[in-house]
Amino acid sequence: MAMLDGTCREVLEQTEFVAIVTNAASGPHLVATWGDYVRQLGWEGDRLLIPVGMLRQTEANLARDSRIQLLVASRKAEGTRGPGQGCLIEGKGTIITSGEEADRAKATFPWARGALVVVVEKVTAQL
Amino acid sequence: MAMLDGTCREVLEQTEFVAIVTNAASGPHLVATWGDYVRQLGWEGDRLLIPVGMLRQTEANLARDSRIQLLVASRKAEGTRGPGQGCLIEGKGTIITSGEEADRAKATFPWARGALVVVVEKVTAQL
Repeated sequence: MAMLDGTCREVLEQTEFVAIVTNAASGPHLVATWGDYVRQLGWEGDRLLIPVGMLRQTEANLARDSRIQLLVASRKAEGTRGPGQGCLIEGKGTIITSGEEADRAKATFPWARGALVVVVEKVTAQL
Repeated sequence: MAMLDGTCREVLEQTEFVAIVTNAASGPHLVATWGDYVRQLGWEGDRLLIPVGMLRQTEANLARDSRIQLLVASRKAEGTRGPGQGCLIEGKGTIITSGEEADRAKATFPWARGALVVVVEKVTAQL
């Protein structure tokens, strides 16, 4: 089963926003994108796409350390401990500005300069 | 004006969840709490409280590097670029298990062992 199936899929389908964390030389760098942006580009297998407008610092961070973490959560998803579930998604990230996936991001979002490709390696229930 | 007033207050009043990032020796550590948990304990001036159940890794990270970042966002808040606004909250964090604030967290949440106190130093609009 792909890692983004199951509980995490339900949370991804509901989350209002997605927290994005990368590792800067000075420490953690935290930004976010809207859940519906991610849903519009979608995910397939363990590959998830996020449209990229700015994200210049995230891009610089990924160039030095490709590890990336995403956090999604929704009160509407059925949780392991009652209503509401979160999901920590860990993997490797790359920002691409050309190729089919980047073109799809640019066609979907006129402000996008490319796509952040997250190759998911681990998913952990949260909250 | 306290830093958590204005746009950020509106986002805090609406956010479904709160991403919490600290700096582990191995890199960024990302967890989350529910927005309504934070709203139940509230914030005053630049001091924001989060109930603490587990958060053992976050606690260890704060002991070595007290910097903490929170990210909140809501499509319901009026944004700088259309509907929806996010807010990055940066400051210093401490987990306390005794004292008035910790007692309040434990009285409000039976599962809580204390409170994460965030002293806010900087707030930046996101999304």
